[in-house]
Amino acid sequence: MDDRSLSNIDQPSLFCILSKRLFAGMFNFRKIFALWFLVATTMSYTSVSMAVPKVKSWSTENGVRVYYVHAPELPMVDVQILFDAGSARDKKKKGLSLLTNRMLSMGAGKLDATGIAENFESVGAKLGRGALRDSAWLSLRTLSKEKYLSKAVNTLATVLNKPRFLKGDLAREKKRIVATIRQQGASPSSIAKRAFYKELFRKHPYANMPIGTIKGVKSLNKKDLQKFYQQYYVGNNAVVAIVGAIDEARARKMVHTLTSTLKPGSKAAALPKVKPLTKSKLVHIPHPSSQSHIFIGQTGTYRGDPEYYLLYTANHPFGGGGGLTSRLAQEVREKRGLAYSVYSYFSPMRRRGIFVIGMQTKNSNTVKAINLLNAQLNKYHRKGMSRKEFKHAVSNITGGFALRIDTNKEIVQYLGLIGFYNLPINYMTEFTKNIQKLDRKQINAAFKKRIRPQAMVTIVVGGRKAPVLSAP
Amino acid sequence: MDDRSLSNIDQPSLFCILSKRLFAGMFNFRKIFALWFLVATTMSYTSVSMAVPKVKSWSTENGVRVYYVHAPELPMVDVQILFDAGSARDKKKKGLSLLTNRMLSMGAGKLDATGIAENFESVGAKLGRGALRDSAWLSLRTLSKEKYLSKAVNTLATVLNKPRFLKGDLAREKKRIVATIRQQGASPSSIAKRAFYKELFRKHPYANMPIGTIKGVKSLNKKDLQKFYQQYYVGNNAVVAIVGAIDEARARKMVHTLTSTLKPGSKAAALPKVKPLTKSKLVHIPHPSSQSHIFIGQTGTYRGDPEYYLLYTANHPFGGGGGLTSRLAQEVREKRGLAYSVYSYFSPMRRRGIFVIGMQTKNSNTVKAINLLNAQLNKYHRKGMSRKEFKHAVSNITGGFALRIDTNKEIVQYLGLIGFYNLPINYMTEFTKNIQKLDRKQINAAFKKRIRPQAMVTIVVGGRKAPVLSAP
Repeated sequence: MDDRSLSNIDQPSLFCILSKRLFAGMFNFRKIFALWFLVATTMSYTSVSMAVPKVKSWSTENGVRVYYVHAPELPMVDVQILFDAGSARDKKKKGLSLLTNRMLSMGAGKLDATGIAENFESVGAKLGRGALRDSAWLSLRTLSKEKYLSKAVNTLATVLNKPRFLKGDLAREKKRIVATIRQQGASPSSIAKRAFYKELFRKHPYANMPIGTIKGVKSLNKKDLQKFYQQYYVGNNAVVAIVGAIDEARARKMVHTLTSTLKPGSKAAALPKVKPLTKSKLVHIPHPSSQSHIFIGQTGTYRGDPEYYLLYTANHPFGGGGGLTSRLAQEVREKRGLAYSVYSYFSPMRRRGIFVIGMQTKNSNTVKAINLLNAQLNKYHRKGMSRKEFKHAVSNITGGFALRIDTNKEIVQYLGLIGFYNLPINYMTEFTKNIQKLDRKQINAAFKKRIRPQAMVTIVVGGRKAPVLSAP
Repeated sequence: MDDRSLSNIDQPSLFCILSKRLFAGMFNFRKIFALWFLVATTMSYTSVSMAVPKVKSWSTENGVRVYYVHAPELPMVDVQILFDAGSARDKKKKGLSLLTNRMLSMGAGKLDATGIAENFESVGAKLGRGALRDSAWLSLRTLSKEKYLSKAVNTLATVLNKPRFLKGDLAREKKRIVATIRQQGASPSSIAKRAFYKELFRKHPYANMPIGTIKGVKSLNKKDLQKFYQQYYVGNNAVVAIVGAIDEARARKMVHTLTSTLKPGSKAAALPKVKPLTKSKLVHIPHPSSQSHIFIGQTGTYRGDPEYYLLYTANHPFGGGGGLTSRLAQEVREKRGLAYSVYSYFSPMRRRGIFVIGMQTKNSNTVKAINLLNAQLNKYHRKGMSRKEFKHAVSNITGGFALRIDTNKEIVQYLGLIGFYNLPINYMTEFTKNIQKLDRKQINAAFKKRIRPQAMVTIVVGGRKAPVLSAP
C-alpha cells in the first residue's frame, strides 16, 4: 500500500478519489499543474468551476438523509449508503465494524456470497463496501435501465437488510482478516501507521486501526455482529448518496427499496473530543528493512472546522499540492535526494484527524531527514507562506477542484461526504469560492495557531538503533 | 493473497473467474454442490448446458485472431486482448513482461496515467491488465452505446498502440514493484510459492515469478521495455476476445480500431518443454510464523493435453471440487482438524503447469500433515477413485460448468483462453460432454501414469527446524 493513502483513512469519499489518483501515480501533479498554468494564464476560475453539480437533499420517514444529483449523461447510477458505524464504534471489540461490514455481502436472505456476486454481475452491476474510523458503507454502480437497476437494487436491499452472519462464513472471514493483520505486522509502513495512530489518539477510539487486532477479531462472534448491526445500521444513522441517470421520482423509489425496512434507531452518540498532544515523543521500532519509514505529526482539523479551508491551503505550499513543488519536496527530494517522495497533509474526520509529514529514507539518513523536516516545519510555522506561494496554492487548489468532481463516482463520494459530515449542501459549488476568499495572513495565522511544533509525535520504523536527534 | 490463487497463475481467464469465486469464498462449493444435487436428482444435464454461447472466430490481415460472442442481454461489451508476452519471455530480464504490461496504462499518446484513467471513467468504462507466465493482457468493460464505446475503445487503442514508457513513470513503477517484492519476501505464502516454482521448473522460464526479482526489476530500462513491446505486442502474437451487445460488424470495426496499427510481427517462439522431476526433494525455509505453509507437487498437465479431462476429473475426488467433500478435506480437515483448508489441483499452461497439494498447519503438526498428505496421495495413486466418487465428480463438474460461463466476464475470459491456447472453438459447448464421456478406469489409469509419488517436491515455510519425515 502506498503510504500516502494514510491521508485518506477516514474519508471514504476522498479516499476513493485520491486512491484513483494515487494509483495513476505521481503524475497527478502534472495535470493539476498544467491546469493551474492554464487557469492562471488564460482562463478565469469561474469557467473551471461551472460544471459543479446541483445537489438535492431530503430525509425519509425513518430518518435516512438522502443526497441526489441528476446526471443523465451516462446510463448508469452510482449509489453510496453510509452509516456512522466505523471502527470508532468498536469499543473493546477491535475489528467489529469492519467485519460486520464485510459480512453483509457474504450472505443475505436466501443468497450466499456467490449468489450475491452473481446477482450483481448478471446485470453488470458492481458492489463496493468498506469501513474506516468514522463510517462504514456499501456502494453500487449499476446500469440505469429499469430491468438491470431493479435487480441490482433489490439485491443490494437484501444485502443491507437481511444479513445472515452465518457461523461458517464468519469463521472464514475472521481467518482472512487475521491473516491480513499478520501480513501487516511484517510491513514497515503498516507498522508505522499503526504506531502513529496509537501515539496520536491514545485512549480515543481513533487510536485503533479499522482492521482491528488479532485478539480482537478472533474473539468476535455472531452475536457481536448482530448487535452492532442492529444498533448502527439504522435509518437515523444513515446517509444515501445517489448520482446518475435517474430522475428524482425513481431515486426516491430506489431509496425506499433500499432503506424503508431499516429500523429508525438512533443516531450514534457523539464521539469524544480528541485531546491534542502536549509534548513531543519519538518512537523507534526496529525493523530489518533498509529504508526507514518516518511519520511526524499531531492531531489536526475536523470536518466542519471553521478554519478548515485555511489549514488545507496552509499545507499546500508546505508539503501538499501533488508533491513536487512544495517546500518539503524541494528541500528533501530535489536539493538533497533523501527520498523519492515526501509530503504532508491534514486528514479531517468527525473529530480532529491527523496532520502528518511522511517520507521514507535510507536508515543511515534517518537523523538527517528528521532534523530537516523539523527545521522546515519550524521555519514555516514561524514565517508562513510567501506571496508567490499563496498565489500558486490558491490557483492550484481552485483549478484542480473541477477535476476532482468530473466523474459520477467522484460526485457520489463527495455527496456521501457532505451528508455524512453535515457539510453545507452547496459544498462543491462553494469550495472554490471559499478558497478564493482566503487571505494569506489569515492562513499563516491559522497554521501558526493550530500546529504546535513542540508537540509532535515522530515514528521511525526501520534500522536497529533509535535515531539520536539533536535538541529541538 | 489466498494460496488457492496459486492454481490460476497462468490462466488469465480462469484466474479471473476463480478469483471472483475465491473472493466470494469457500462457499462456492455449496452452490456447486447444491446444483449438483439438483441436477443429479431432478434434472437432465442437457438443460444445464444449454446456455453455452455460440462462438465466432476470424483473423485480421496483420494476424490477430479474434473470438466473438454476441450477447445482447446487457448493453455492455467486454474485451480482452492477450499477447504471448508473459514472464516466460523475460529471459534474463526478470520482471520485464509485467512491467511492460503495467506501463501501458501509465502514459500513452498525449495522455498521462490520470488522463487515461479519466478517459475511461468519463464513459463509465473499466480498464484491466495483467501479466502471468504465459500471457500478458489488457481488458475493457464498456457500455455498448456508440458514443461511450468509441471513446473507451479509442483510449484503449492509444494505450495499446502508443505507450510512452516515460522515464519518470518507469522509475516510479519500478519502485512500486520492488516494494511489493520486498513485502512478498516477508510473507510465508509468497515465499513458499516462489520456492515451489523454482524447484519444479529449475532452468525452465516458468521457474520465475512474473513480478520478477528486485535485482531484475531495478535493472530494467526504457529500451528493454520498448524492445519487448515491439517484439511481442504484435498482430501475429495476439488474440482478441469480445463478448457483448455489439453485432459482428461493430465487433470487426472495434478490432480494427484496436489492432490494425499493430505490426504483424512474429508469433513468439515455442517455449521449451518442461522436464518432469525424477526424484523427490524437501525444501524447508525457516520463518517466524506460527503456521507452516506446505506445498507438495510436481509438474502436471498442459492446455490441449489429450489427457487433460482425465486428469482434471481425477483430481476432483482427491483434493478438488470446492474443498469440503474431497478425500484430503475429509482426512485433514474433518477427521483430524489439521487445517482449515486443504486442496489439490492441476494448473495447465502452454507447457506442463503445476500439480500441487497445499495446506497450512501449526508448525508442530507439519510432519504429521506431510506424512498424511503423502499417504493419501500414495493410496489414491494406487487404487484411484471409487464408483461413488466417480459419479459424484462427473455430476459435480458437469453441473457446475454452466455456472462458470453464466456472465459475460466469464465468457470473455474463456474466449481468451480458447484463443490463446488454440483450444477447439466449441470448447465451452463440449466441456460437459467431454467429461460425461469419461470412463472411471481411464481416469484412474491416467492419474496413475502421470503422477509420480516418488518424484514430488515438498516446500515447507515456517518453523525453525526442517521437518524430519519418515521414509516414504
